Amino acid sequence: VERLRHQGMAKNTYMRWRLPLICLLWEVAMIVLFGVFVRFGPEADAHWEEEKKELNLTSDLENDFYFRYPSFQDVHVMIFVGFGFLMTFLKRYGFGAVGFNFLLAAFGIQWALLMQGWFHSFKNGKILIGVENLINADFCVGSVCIAFGAILGKTSPIQLLVMTLFQVTLFSVNEYILLNLLHVKDAGGSMTIHTFGAYFGLTVTRILYRPNLEQSKDKQGSVYHSDLFAMIGTLYLWMYWPSFNSAISEHGDAQHRSAINTYCSLAACVLTTMAFSSMLQKKGKLDMVHIQNATLAGGVAVGTSAEMMLTPYGSLIVGSISGIVSTVGYVYFTPFLESRLHIQDTCGIHNLHAMPGLIGGIVGAITAAAATEDVYGREGFIKAFDFTGEYQMRTPSVQGGFQAAGIVVSLLMAFVGGGIVGGILKLPIWGDAAAENCFEDEVYWGVPEDEESDAYHMHNPDKPASP
Amino acid sequence: VERLRHQGMAKNTYMRWRLPLICLLWEVAMIVLFGVFVRFGPEADAHWEEEKKELNLTSDLENDFYFRYPSFQDVHVMIFVGFGFLMTFLKRYGFGAVGFNFLLAAFGIQWALLMQGWFHSFKNGKILIGVENLINADFCVGSVCIAFGAILGKTSPIQLLVMTLFQVTLFSVNEYILLNLLHVKDAGGSMTIHTFGAYFGLTVTRILYRPNLEQSKDKQGSVYHSDLFAMIGTLYLWMYWPSFNSAISEHGDAQHRSAINTYCSLAACVLTTMAFSSMLQKKGKLDMVHIQNATLAGGVAVGTSAEMMLTPYGSLIVGSISGIVSTVGYVYFTPFLESRLHIQDTCGIHNLHAMPGLIGGIVGAITAAAATEDVYGREGFIKAFDFTGEYQMRTPSVQGGFQAAGIVVSLLMAFVGGGIVGGILKLPIWGDAAAENCFEDEVYWGVPEDEESDAYHMHNPDKPASP
Amino acid sequence: VERLRHQGMAKNTYMRWRLPLICLLWEVAMIVLFGVFVRFGPEADAHWEEEKKELNLTSDLENDFYFRYPSFQDVHVMIFVGFGFLMTFLKRYGFGAVGFNFLLAAFGIQWALLMQGWFHSFKNGKILIGVENLINADFCVGSVCIAFGAILGKTSPIQLLVMTLFQVTLFSVNEYILLNLLHVKDAGGSMTIHTFGAYFGLTVTRILYRPNLEQSKDKQGSVYHSDLFAMIGTLYLWMYWPSFNSAISEHGDAQHRSAINTYCSLAACVLTTMAFSSMLQKKGKLDMVHIQNATLAGGVAVGTSAEMMLTPYGSLIVGSISGIVSTVGYVYFTPFLESRLHIQDTCGIHNLHAMPGLIGGIVGAITAAAATEDVYGREGFIKAFDFTGEYQMRTPSVQGGFQAAGIVVSLLMAFVGGGIVGGILKLPIWGDAAAENCFEDEVYWGVPEDEESDAYHMHNPDKPASP
Repeated sequence: VERLRHQGMAKNTYMRWRLPLICLLWEVAMIVLFGVFVRFGPEADAHWEEEKKELNLTSDLENDFYFRYPSFQDVHVMIFVGFGFLMTFLKRYGFGAVGFNFLLAAFGIQWALLMQGWFHSFKNGKILIGVENLINADFCVGSVCIAFGAILGKTSPIQLLVMTLFQVTLFSVNEYILLNLLHVKDAGGSMTIHTFGAYFGLTVTRILYRPNLEQSKDKQGSVYHSDLFAMIGTLYLWMYWPSFNSAISEHGDAQHRSAINTYCSLAACVLTTMAFSSMLQKKGKLDMVHIQNATLAGGVAVGTSAEMMLTPYGSLIVGSISGIVSTVGYVYFTPFLESRLHIQDTCGIHNLHAMPGLIGGIVGAITAAAATEDVYGREGFIKAFDFTGEYQMRTPSVQGGFQAAGIVVSLLMAFVGGGIVGGILKLPIWGDAAAENCFEDEVYWGVPEDEESDAYHMHNPDKPASP
Repeated sequence: VERLRHQGMAKNTYMRWRLPLICLLWEVAMIVLFGVFVRFGPEADAHWEEEKKELNLTSDLENDFYFRYPSFQDVHVMIFVGFGFLMTFLKRYGFGAVGFNFLLAAFGIQWALLMQGWFHSFKNGKILIGVENLINADFCVGSVCIAFGAILGKTSPIQLLVMTLFQVTLFSVNEYILLNLLHVKDAGGSMTIHTFGAYFGLTVTRILYRPNLEQSKDKQGSVYHSDLFAMIGTLYLWMYWPSFNSAISEHGDAQHRSAINTYCSLAACVLTTMAFSSMLQKKGKLDMVHIQNATLAGGVAVGTSAEMMLTPYGSLIVGSISGIVSTVGYVYFTPFLESRLHIQDTCGIHNLHAMPGLIGGIVGAITAAAATEDVYGREGFIKAFDFTGEYQMRTPSVQGGFQAAGIVVSLLMAFVGGGIVGGILKLPIWGDAAAENCFEDEVYWGVPEDEESDAYHMHNPDKPASP
Repeated sequence: VERLRHQGMAKNTYMRWRLPLICLLWEVAMIVLFGVFVRFGPEADAHWEEEKKELNLTSDLENDFYFRYPSFQDVHVMIFVGFGFLMTFLKRYGFGAVGFNFLLAAFGIQWALLMQGWFHSFKNGKILIGVENLINADFCVGSVCIAFGAILGKTSPIQLLVMTLFQVTLFSVNEYILLNLLHVKDAGGSMTIHTFGAYFGLTVTRILYRPNLEQSKDKQGSVYHSDLFAMIGTLYLWMYWPSFNSAISEHGDAQHRSAINTYCSLAACVLTTMAFSSMLQKKGKLDMVHIQNATLAGGVAVGTSAEMMLTPYGSLIVGSISGIVSTVGYVYFTPFLESRLHIQDTCGIHNLHAMPGLIGGIVGAITAAAATEDVYGREGFIKAFDFTGEYQMRTPSVQGGFQAAGIVVSLLMAFVGGGIVGGILKLPIWGDAAAENCFEDEVYWGVPEDEESDAYHMHNPDKPASP
């Protein structure tokens, strides 16, 4: 421990002034910007009483709050408990996983409310927010949590905050291009959240490549109970994914359909993941890494198409394939990426988010291109793809083309943005740890000195209790 | 470890080809069957836009999604986190508890969508699914999770999948007999889920009786932190049980009433469980096994009657009694069942599900028989028991009789079905472990080689780190 | 262990007859009182079918169940998992934290349904309950969970039940004075729940002062995994706090607004907590105690004002300040309170609930005093503050005054009530443990004899496995 502290010093991981300064300055900036720009949307404003009459609404239930709040809370759990605990699998980085995820997400949602607000909720000089904005802010931060997975254990909290600032900005730009300029559908964010977030994170970790990372190899694994903590994250992501993909779909059948498709896709994904996890291990044993991660690929892979008429069997097919791709990725691609491309991907986001995200984008493009008025009904067709106004003449195949373009744009934004941000994060001023201290909470956290051993009276009298 | 592997081999627990084959073949079967049969129900289909007009619905909120989705998500959490983590109490079977529960439930919900769909949602050759089908599929799988509790630690994942296949089938038949032929009410499933699931599981474990199970006795206990993991499962089951019992009740007062009755019953159950847990231990100390399990009996025991006019004080009485019965069961019945009847019930499902399930069925029969138009109101009476069509002349006492018949049918289905399925699972081809390797994750899982000790630098230099 | 048991005996912590007797007698009392008084409210009663027609309700959705049930479930999770797991941070008191919290809350909600029912839902000799009563009962118990935090590890389960009985009673009286007599707004309970609960608990722990508590100092800390368990509690409290503050607000915009304000306040709070946690530690490392607790102060501090037009930037300001105050409290005030004022506050509720609660009350008073018809709209203004009937002439500044009076009343009730109840709990008949056995589950729980070491084959052959 003493050794570790010294070496930490050598790389100067001392956070005492830098971290507080950034946190406080940025929070003040948020307050000022919120003060200038952010107000309650009409459904959250006390004037709603009057608005209701004007709009001839007969019930308080018509407030969007009641359509979306339960889904919002599920998404909220996914971001903070889901992503946070999923990353606690490392034996000595549980505080960092949960705690830094908490920090970056708490900052990110504020900044996302502003960025997305300027693009989508800006009226008369004010950003008017409601529950849908909260969901979108959580979504945006989700892409940062994904990128965090690639660099988990190798970055300082300051680097994470800096990355969050830039990534939220780029996310919002990319989202604006996709949703508003290309008029693309992506309710569950296969492209905007997963493809963008994952390739952004992979680019960043490539640039932050650490040649001596094997010095902390012993800490890159899990222990028995850390794997169980991670399963909490896995299961909450898995269970609430139907809410994720349906949270911002159109009221009514679209939300309903998104939930069903996602439920089916995820169920299928579990079976193919288990199958390949066992098949690809010599002794046929199941690998917790796959169960923790690849079982979720089915949610990613229907992120674009879930609100479309993908149909339950279509969802099963997509979920099955993505589970296979993801598991194979963990076994073959991750080692390849690390050894050949120097992409050190701590959580394997390439397998859980990048590839399934691409699948999701492609499935979305195909499903859109294959849409017919017969399948959707005349009105349902228009509503599902929002073929109104300037888009009323767009055909399904054209829509499919634009959907495909959305994938390409997301990839470009991720590579270029990730490259720039990676370069910024490489500056030697952010306080990241030396290679031998990676994946170790002790660097940035006060870790209890009383080891677990102590609690169980298991001192070995031959050596000191804690080194 | 080496020893364990060899002996595992002796019993051939090698899963590499068998498990993948079953998972993949069955998933393909699901895809084919879903392709042929499963489509979106009207409220999840894009044609709903038009349907809404035909039905003269003024608001998207009238979509069943908004009535049931929050409850669905709570039920979903109960199945995957609730049951999964409840079973992590074993010191060395946490992966199996959470992971196999995940596997069997993910397969089970697909098969349940089909089986229940054919019985209840079949129109013009298609199964039309919506959120209520998802809830019912989760319910059905709940009965498999219950049975899993009896055989926890003693079966291979293949056996669990085979059991799931058969149990879901039998569940659906039993449910059809009860709900459609006997016209029985059982919204929270005291009979269909708990009584059937538990006695099915107990019959299976009786047939799979292992005379030498004391060879793995040292692994049948908990450790400090595994007991805390189990409490996560307990609390989520306890908290969300009001959603479980109300999830498929009629819209409006019935859902409302179910939630209140269940809330009351569960609260009372905690107090009587604590009382008897302390009273039945010589030193008066509380036993985590009781707290983890018997506190939930109150939810089981109002499963049939929660949507009826059981009244809050009636719920307190039922909850109090079931807590006592369940705790007494853990102290006296479980050892008796094991030593005399050779029923090895790992999680004590006889105490948590079987006996409280019977209580629930009986309370339901009595509550139904005691119903009067005075208490329910004329219209409420008809709505509560669905006394319309061919059942419009049925009286409360007759209904009570049919409810009682429902218990008997469920028991018969459980014993006969469990006997047959137990016989199938006894075939020596499914890869279960030898008695001395039961309750041990190492058999089917890659377990981190770095033991917890390692993470805490507690190596004892006198002996090798891992045997 | 043997030593511990003997000394425990010396203080007579034997629960075998006392605890069961109290649990059973009180549960019987609940049943009798529920039998005499508690019935379903109109929206949960089977007569609702008829009531709906009389009230001309066109949809089942108008049942309050659909407005509040999702929030209720979130609040329920906060009480049982949130508070329960937040307190598992102690290395050897996890069973007590989760288990006793479970016990006292399960009793408390029953007693609260009665107490609050008599004050607020009493009609024609009956208490008519619905989902809002369940939420309020959970709220009331929340104040007991808070007080539990101050005395965690130092009291017997009987003392906790006795405290619950009295605190729920006093809470209900205080709540009645505030809401009905002073006509104060306090939807999220900054005053009624947090200020009252915390100062009540601090007064109790002051009176139960243990001069020799340093004898169990070694058990007052955390271990690595107990800190992660505590983070489960933290995150569920943090994520669901928007539901807490909006759960009983008026339908429509008020619920919507409460959720947004709380979301914003909590996000800001995380950043200032992290900043000060790092800043106030010599080595600049983050302290899990702060992250686990102070990050939640933002939810407490907008408890009164969240449903008002606090605005998002106002929420950020309040959240930022409360995070700072709370973290500073942990570093400087808690040691001061212990050494100078003999207030031993195990969980630091003074920092998490008392000070932020006061801030919340004050912010609420200011926000109310600053309200204008311009900001709220004529109708919104009346609806927000319920300025109808006898209160129709009340002005915002008068309302602000009454809000301030509410703080004072809550404090008085807490000090006087806490003093009396503390005196009662000091009687030597309740079975609390000796100072050297505090913070130790072994006193009241059967703790697994197989230590974790055992599971990992780490026996040290030189000494016996368990002392």
